[in-house]
Amino acid sequence: MVIKYQLLKKDPRSMARLGVITTPHSTFETPIFMPVGTQATVKTMSVEELEACNAKIILGNTYHLWCQPGNEIMAEAGGLHKFMRWNKSILTDSGGFQVFSLAKLRDIKEEGVTFKHHKSGKKLFLSPELAIKIQNDLGSDIMMCLDECPPYPATEEYLENSMHRTIRWAKRCYEANVNKETQGLFGIVQGGNIRRLREYCAQELTKIPFDGYAVGGLSVGEPKEIQNEVLSYTTPLLPEDKPRYLMGVGSPGAILDGVERGIDMFDCVLPTRIARHGTAMTSVGRKLLKNKEFERDFTPLDHECDCYCCKNYTRAYLHHLIKAEEILGQRLISIHNIHFLLKLMENIRKAIREDRFLEFKKEFYEKYGLNNSDKDF
Amino acid sequence: MVIKYQLLKKDPRSMARLGVITTPHSTFETPIFMPVGTQATVKTMSVEELEACNAKIILGNTYHLWCQPGNEIMAEAGGLHKFMRWNKSILTDSGGFQVFSLAKLRDIKEEGVTFKHHKSGKKLFLSPELAIKIQNDLGSDIMMCLDECPPYPATEEYLENSMHRTIRWAKRCYEANVNKETQGLFGIVQGGNIRRLREYCAQELTKIPFDGYAVGGLSVGEPKEIQNEVLSYTTPLLPEDKPRYLMGVGSPGAILDGVERGIDMFDCVLPTRIARHGTAMTSVGRKLLKNKEFERDFTPLDHECDCYCCKNYTRAYLHHLIKAEEILGQRLISIHNIHFLLKLMENIRKAIREDRFLEFKKEFYEKYGLNNSDKDF
Repeated sequence: MVIKYQLLKKDPRSMARLGVITTPHSTFETPIFMPVGTQATVKTMSVEELEACNAKIILGNTYHLWCQPGNEIMAEAGGLHKFMRWNKSILTDSGGFQVFSLAKLRDIKEEGVTFKHHKSGKKLFLSPELAIKIQNDLGSDIMMCLDECPPYPATEEYLENSMHRTIRWAKRCYEANVNKETQGLFGIVQGGNIRRLREYCAQELTKIPFDGYAVGGLSVGEPKEIQNEVLSYTTPLLPEDKPRYLMGVGSPGAILDGVERGIDMFDCVLPTRIARHGTAMTSVGRKLLKNKEFERDFTPLDHECDCYCCKNYTRAYLHHLIKAEEILGQRLISIHNIHFLLKLMENIRKAIREDRFLEFKKEFYEKYGLNNSDKDF
Repeated sequence: MVIKYQLLKKDPRSMARLGVITTPHSTFETPIFMPVGTQATVKTMSVEELEACNAKIILGNTYHLWCQPGNEIMAEAGGLHKFMRWNKSILTDSGGFQVFSLAKLRDIKEEGVTFKHHKSGKKLFLSPELAIKIQNDLGSDIMMCLDECPPYPATEEYLENSMHRTIRWAKRCYEANVNKETQGLFGIVQGGNIRRLREYCAQELTKIPFDGYAVGGLSVGEPKEIQNEVLSYTTPLLPEDKPRYLMGVGSPGAILDGVERGIDMFDCVLPTRIARHGTAMTSVGRKLLKNKEFERDFTPLDHECDCYCCKNYTRAYLHHLIKAEEILGQRLISIHNIHFLLKLMENIRKAIREDRFLEFKKEFYEKYGLNNSDKDF
């Protein structure tokens, strides 16, 4: 296996687990959160700022990098790591999620998907082989299989057909990888909210020696009860000696729920996206910096945080920068939010190590205000 | 004098001069360029990045800071230095330039100017006393008098009346300063392109013990020959033992022309503004990073530059970031452009010290391509 996973500890009262992943570029403990660097940059942030936030692995989006600058240029640059000067691990998605969420007029056939680019309208074709070829050119540590991410809700018939194609595509992806010694590949379990389909998909995909497995098709608009239910019966179907990744999940509440159900890896644009609109995640819940209450508040954004933003600037300054639409405001809150989530993961790992994960989760939920409303889930 | 100027050396073959300015916050050699931090931030950059570019003094815009967050909040914050965490010098303009260039429906009376805010449309009134009051609240090292910056072209009659009012306002500004021990104040010589008016204005303003003098009303659309001609006869009218500031000038060509005519200080939004559109100043002229020629160019932006951007990233990466509209691209090119201009100032000072300023200027003009067209003047 290119990607090595070592299980360090299992929480006795939940499925939460502590582990270590080693990729060709870095070693890090899990559960982990991966900041999203869609277009060869985590929006607004430098790689030094990411490192100061203790990021160990980031995500790159194959769809976006394929369209701009293009995989040939990425290969000429020596891969994504060198292009963007990030020396730690990179996971790339397959491009599939964007094809199904962003692109227009898509036509799914056995061979692959034909669709129009979401901005240029240019007709494009993505197959399992091409998704892997692009990721081989990007040189990511962990690649993802091309799958179909079905919408929620979808009929059982649709989910079943789609799931079978996802399995066939997974086999083709595995075969297509020309860098089996240097780039890992994860399979993606689909099947919507139908237990029978998730079980079948997990059973078939685990026959292929992938480096890890993702639970896909969640965080697409379903209620959190369904997300948690699907996770509860899906993660036990996955091998204990390989990492498990819940795609597209990054709110503190959903991360804690995922960890409780045995997930090791998370990614989401949430922390950087809300930061650009002036919303910060803090130890006592979300803060909308644009609000007038912060106009004359000369205290740090989060008293419990030791990130660059909280150590140096006031809420009044952040309020001003956001009101004035200054990029530095987006930068400072992005740094804080990424630091906040990576610190949360560190605290989660510490709690698992100390046999108090469920207590930690309860305390966090209460302090963050997650019992009061669902909006921050 | 709050602002101390020491003349170190005069160029024997031009009016160029080498000096040292000491303000309450820092000491720096002149000629110097001041990056513009309009709204309590030099757009896209952190204060650490500014320091790494060797910035010693930056500019804040009184008009913008008065409107957002407001001078009362700035005073409560402990002043602009503390608010934005910049420990070196700050020069603030008077707000006058924005009133005359941005605001709508302005009505100039002896008492002050009534106008509508350029975005909100809110009716506002700015007087010499208020311009100083706001700058006292901001706590800048160097304040500027409220003046009228007349358009180009303007009739001699208009210029004469305006110039007389600017002198009367300058006296009121001097009286209004309540921080005479801690904040310096510069007068602004107006008079358009009429030598008689410039002479009269300089004669009257130098009777007031200002800490330095600016040449105003230039860089407002006049041909560069006129700018240079006005400078040639205006700077000799200013005291040799005080700093001279050419407002709103920041292109390499105009800076060199200004230094040749005895100017010590420059400011302009140019380096950061063009950076946000993907244009870099390099040792061989401007580069538009969006151009396809850089798509596969894996060399540094400027081979002669040792800034963070040039030491670490390729033109291909910058091209990609600008094409993808990523903020990191704007950041990296802003860092480079500020570093480039501050390095130019360092080289100018070195050349004056070594008695080869005119040779340096000629070489720079040729290498930068300034003999080929006027566009980069």
